[in-house]
Amino acid sequence: MLSYDAETIAAIATPPGEGGVGIVRISGPGVWQIVDQFFHPLDGTPLSVREHGTFAYGKVVEADGGEIDAGLALVMRAPRSYTCEDVVEIQGHGGSVVLRRILRRVLEAGARMAEPGEFTKRAFLNGRIDLVQAEGIYDLIRARSDRAAAAALEQMEGRLSQRFNALYDAFMEVAANLETTLDFVEDELPDDVFSGIASLLDRTFLELDELFDTWDEGRLLREGARIVILGRPNAGKSTLLNALLGYDRAIVSSTAGTTRDTIEEGFVLDGIPLRIIDTAGLRQTDCEIEAEGIRRAEAHGAEAHLAIYLVDASEPLHEEDRVRLGRLDPDRSIVVLNKVDLGRRVQIDGIETSLASGRGLADLKKAMAQALERGADLHAPPHAVISERHRALLAKAHHEARSARSLLERNIEENAAMASEHLRTALEMLGQVTGRAYHDELLDNIFSRFCIGK
Amino acid sequence: MLSYDAETIAAIATPPGEGGVGIVRISGPGVWQIVDQFFHPLDGTPLSVREHGTFAYGKVVEADGGEIDAGLALVMRAPRSYTCEDVVEIQGHGGSVVLRRILRRVLEAGARMAEPGEFTKRAFLNGRIDLVQAEGIYDLIRARSDRAAAAALEQMEGRLSQRFNALYDAFMEVAANLETTLDFVEDELPDDVFSGIASLLDRTFLELDELFDTWDEGRLLREGARIVILGRPNAGKSTLLNALLGYDRAIVSSTAGTTRDTIEEGFVLDGIPLRIIDTAGLRQTDCEIEAEGIRRAEAHGAEAHLAIYLVDASEPLHEEDRVRLGRLDPDRSIVVLNKVDLGRRVQIDGIETSLASGRGLADLKKAMAQALERGADLHAPPHAVISERHRALLAKAHHEARSARSLLERNIEENAAMASEHLRTALEMLGQVTGRAYHDELLDNIFSRFCIGK
Repeated sequence: MLSYDAETIAAIATPPGEGGVGIVRISGPGVWQIVDQFFHPLDGTPLSVREHGTFAYGKVVEADGGEIDAGLALVMRAPRSYTCEDVVEIQGHGGSVVLRRILRRVLEAGARMAEPGEFTKRAFLNGRIDLVQAEGIYDLIRARSDRAAAAALEQMEGRLSQRFNALYDAFMEVAANLETTLDFVEDELPDDVFSGIASLLDRTFLELDELFDTWDEGRLLREGARIVILGRPNAGKSTLLNALLGYDRAIVSSTAGTTRDTIEEGFVLDGIPLRIIDTAGLRQTDCEIEAEGIRRAEAHGAEAHLAIYLVDASEPLHEEDRVRLGRLDPDRSIVVLNKVDLGRRVQIDGIETSLASGRGLADLKKAMAQALERGADLHAPPHAVISERHRALLAKAHHEARSARSLLERNIEENAAMASEHLRTALEMLGQVTGRAYHDELLDNIFSRFCIGK
Repeated sequence: MLSYDAETIAAIATPPGEGGVGIVRISGPGVWQIVDQFFHPLDGTPLSVREHGTFAYGKVVEADGGEIDAGLALVMRAPRSYTCEDVVEIQGHGGSVVLRRILRRVLEAGARMAEPGEFTKRAFLNGRIDLVQAEGIYDLIRARSDRAAAAALEQMEGRLSQRFNALYDAFMEVAANLETTLDFVEDELPDDVFSGIASLLDRTFLELDELFDTWDEGRLLREGARIVILGRPNAGKSTLLNALLGYDRAIVSSTAGTTRDTIEEGFVLDGIPLRIIDTAGLRQTDCEIEAEGIRRAEAHGAEAHLAIYLVDASEPLHEEDRVRLGRLDPDRSIVVLNKVDLGRRVQIDGIETSLASGRGLADLKKAMAQALERGADLHAPPHAVISERHRALLAKAHHEARSARSLLERNIEENAAMASEHLRTALEMLGQVTGRAYHDELLDNIFSRFCIGK
């Protein structure tokens, strides 16, 4: 009783490139008929009659008997596989030509090329995982830090889904209770029935808020924090970038205005992937190219998670610094007093550094990590965090639930039917999060981002 | 009775990057003790007590119990594995962070990071494969065309080794026969014993020559053929490059001298990987940059497998073309008469094309394939071909065998001992080809080129 076309699909499941081993994955009802055509186990027992959980060494051969490769084949029988279908994985040598030859042979034997994410989509359609778990798999593969990987694993294993499901059940209970009242005439109902329903609903808002609160951290883990380095020309911005990255990414020179384009590089600090943006020296300038660089720096500063403003502390504070420092959001910025080895001639607070020699760098990194953790407790055990898609659906559900709540407040008996409508819409939104309710476009949006072979 | 340190080694065996699946391979006597620490099969049965040829689904966990990933573990028991040792392969999710986390955990549990090619080196040291087969595995992973992959597979499966071994046995027989004569006094030996030995030796030269003959094809398959495109400015060289590649790699303009640098791109023609070199227009010029481009083109022409010389056929033959065409090696060049749609005003032979519209391109490709196949029968079934390393050792063996042969010729009884010495040296060279005889430096040279994880 499959809800999709039951063709047998195949794809290379390992990353492209050269490696010791590569895998071609085949899934679907036709897998045995297909693999027996081209995989010849050394011991003579065809894959189609082997047991689940075993693998065989053998040869991959062309239709004319010519050899393509020698390797392993893993046998997985429905529903005990990733897709819940019959699956065979061929492990061949990890070169791109040899893997493509194996795949070509599999397609020739009757499989069709899998679409991106199609194996995972089948796992979802067969009820093995929900959409939130599928997204966790995607996040795990793409994770750029240990902490992001750990959070994705939590999500893949269903911890976030449990919370969404609990929320769904709570809304469902409220809606069901409300709908029961519709069958009664007004004075048959107990006095406190609606206040009971309202307080049930109120409890869901707490859980909704807690889920919303994970979103900032989710963005940090998935996309990385954007850090912008600001300051007047020659304050040491490129030196800081190089010191943070640990190698010379930017050309550093003592000529003011050396860095004309913005430079963006990634690294991981305390488990948070960072995107550091070095900017052109911020100053009034006649040079058109530099002026464009400065415009970009200003734009970056506005959207960054954190701004690091460098001041040359060996000189009296420049008027431009004073103006710009006043504009910074104190919650999202760190002031660095650089070049203190040349004497300190500014009176403002900040982290003292001498970046050319590395002095103060450790303090600065610590301050950066602390600033990024505000609003996202990164020392708590890793936990699953909501994505932008979840947030958007939760926001709609929240809005509907609020509407229901205020209807119940104002004139409770008369509005029960309408409030129940709002809750049904909220339930639909929550259903789209985990995939209880889905449509093709939703699935396409999610699975088309996956790599082929997953 | 191992001939190497028996540490347990581990590495990521799949290519780097993002994919559905990645593999961490662990090999050595400590594997069971190591994997039971961090891999928890879902059914509770530890990997250490599972049977060869089975796999289990389970979780990869940190020492503190925190989860790293969920995936499969394949159990292979010595000697039925790639390395002939106990081996476990962990199949995790194919992201670089998650695979590195798994590897880190494996190392923490007691394995050591494998060196490049170390798994294959152990397969060699344990006698599962010889050096020529190991090189075949390397070539298979790196193969850039189907034909190269097929030839590498033949080599991996031992077809080339068989020929080397037969040659070794033949030399050994000659040497043994010669050495037997040393125990006799002269007049006790039959009259024809030395002529018999000499004719045995002569037969080996035929096989040596046949092996040498595969070297050119080996170079073609491993490195690709170098094709240089020559001609006067505006003859259509960049247009040809783009037509062959199927996309606009070179900037094409009607201004003579547009292409200043040489452009090199790869594609596969009839199973032969090609490196096509487009060159700056060949003409006398005052411009320094262009002159340098032309010098490079001349240099490329000299070392290419094939030169394609383009003539603008719509104009009378230029004196420069006449001079240069006269210098071409007819066995290694193709003359193309381009722009025949604009009329044909040259009288020389060549393939008529109008490359701007694609006319004649198929004929040209056919001619290119034919020219490249001269000296390398690429329509024969794929067969293993010797490498530069094999050629160098064979050449030395050949030299020694020739010396032995001429000693036998000149004064047969007296020179038997010396001839036998030469054959022993030849045997040592052949032994180094397959690895009957080896030293650390030889192994390092071969295996250090491998990727880590193979």
